[in-house]
Amino acid sequence: MGDAFCLEFKVRDYECDLQGIVNNAVYQHYLEHARHEFLVSRGVDFAALAKEGIHPVVVRAELDYKRSLRPGESFVVETTCTREGKVRIVFLQDIRHADGGLVLSSRFVATVLDGRGRPRIPEGFAASVLGEGSGS
Amino acid sequence: MGDAFCLEFKVRDYECDLQGIVNNAVYQHYLEHARHEFLVSRGVDFAALAKEGIHPVVVRAELDYKRSLRPGESFVVETTCTREGKVRIVFLQDIRHADGGLVLSSRFVATVLDGRGRPRIPEGFAASVLGEGSGS
Amino acid sequence: MGDAFCLEFKVRDYECDLQGIVNNAVYQHYLEHARHEFLVSRGVDFAALAKEGIHPVVVRAELDYKRSLRPGESFVVETTCTREGKVRIVFLQDIRHADGGLVLSSRFVATVLDGRGRPRIPEGFAASVLGEGSGS
Amino acid sequence: MGDAFCLEFKVRDYECDLQGIVNNAVYQHYLEHARHEFLVSRGVDFAALAKEGIHPVVVRAELDYKRSLRPGESFVVETTCTREGKVRIVFLQDIRHADGGLVLSSRFVATVLDGRGRPRIPEGFAASVLGEGSGS
Repeated sequence: MGDAFCLEFKVRDYECDLQGIVNNAVYQHYLEHARHEFLVSRGVDFAALAKEGIHPVVVRAELDYKRSLRPGESFVVETTCTREGKVRIVFLQDIRHADGGLVLSSRFVATVLDGRGRPRIPEGFAASVLGEGSGS
Repeated sequence: MGDAFCLEFKVRDYECDLQGIVNNAVYQHYLEHARHEFLVSRGVDFAALAKEGIHPVVVRAELDYKRSLRPGESFVVETTCTREGKVRIVFLQDIRHADGGLVLSSRFVATVLDGRGRPRIPEGFAASVLGEGSGS
Repeated sequence: MGDAFCLEFKVRDYECDLQGIVNNAVYQHYLEHARHEFLVSRGVDFAALAKEGIHPVVVRAELDYKRSLRPGESFVVETTCTREGKVRIVFLQDIRHADGGLVLSSRFVATVLDGRGRPRIPEGFAASVLGEGSGS
Repeated sequence: MGDAFCLEFKVRDYECDLQGIVNNAVYQHYLEHARHEFLVSRGVDFAALAKEGIHPVVVRAELDYKRSLRPGESFVVETTCTREGKVRIVFLQDIRHADGGLVLSSRFVATVLDGRGRPRIPEGFAASVLGEGSGS
């Protein structure tokens, strides 16, 4: 993914399960952390949003498991983000092993809930995260 | 889901995150636990399979988040399972709040890897889990 | 422990690590959950306390690991609680395998922080949790 | 701690709980990861040990919680290690906030179980981890 936001990780032993590989659910933790770091890098302030009663939420997750990660292995989460319709933001996230191999590809559909729990992407949010509204 | 395998849970505080709700990744833990209990109830012996080098694995996960769970809330995971093609087993899993409301619906595509890492559903596995091959 | 508050659990596969046993940190989750359920059973309302800026916190944990738990095993967490000095509450917690064997014994020293972050056990808290002040 | 093995971390949002701070049990994960990285840096090969039926295990943990960590905060785990008697290894581990403040101090007593489940520190293990036996 060309202009992806890249975040490096290393597998910690406690993230692995009986099978000696990273547990399936743990990948969601990696991906969530990468999305949050991506959003922070774009200027999103979760605490400030929460104070206004604004909550980004995931409404759908799709994960394709290609290959397992093992203890001590290094990998990168690559994150890109686009708008889909009025109220949805789609994150495409790949996990790539340090050797270049694809470990997992995923797609997360998110929205932002306003103070009344209705989906609505705040203007400032769209501008900073998606680079919208900055054109002439 | 009519003949679903049902497993009851109660949200534990440590499963909730900053937003005061169950963290997205934790649902995968609930769902995995329910799938394993379902398989055990059908006679699958994970340890015995592992000794033969046979590993059930998830290759794709789809989760639709409908509503959040909060501390102390009770819920049920409903699991059903069907075959899809030669080497795939599909689990449909719903999470339902004690009040009857749908919290999450999901679809997990799994396969079984033999000793050489190739997808192949062992006959005994299919018979016990899917009720196949028992007809006259 | 004679009058202990008892809570039953069953090991979930995802709680086990590479060694095929419950990960050391997971026991703290079990123990925390048991303490919270104990407090709730005594009438403590965490949400209400939080609204008043009152937070129970652990200041010291001691855990003696006697024996490992494995996938699918059932166990009980036994919790008792006493006061120690003016601002400390001590929880003694044992984890006992369904076969009666001791898995872990632990001691958690906690206090309650008031709105200004100072340790102070609210009267109502002590009365309900420790049974103090209810005498004639 | 002068000659401590230092490992840097950054708090991930999913490690925080309802109270907005890192959950107590998560610190054990940090500490375990730091101990493992320390041992690996000293040449310990967990997989090779496991093949010989040799398992390092924690028998006692003591954690003093001094201060909370919050989302996004950076910290260091400092690890040192000494022998205690014939069959025990003691790890002293401090967690220090990036601002220098002490977050947690801990003491883990570990041993190594041989193929028959008896505590015995292998010579090679002691030599590499504790620097023993290399003197003249």
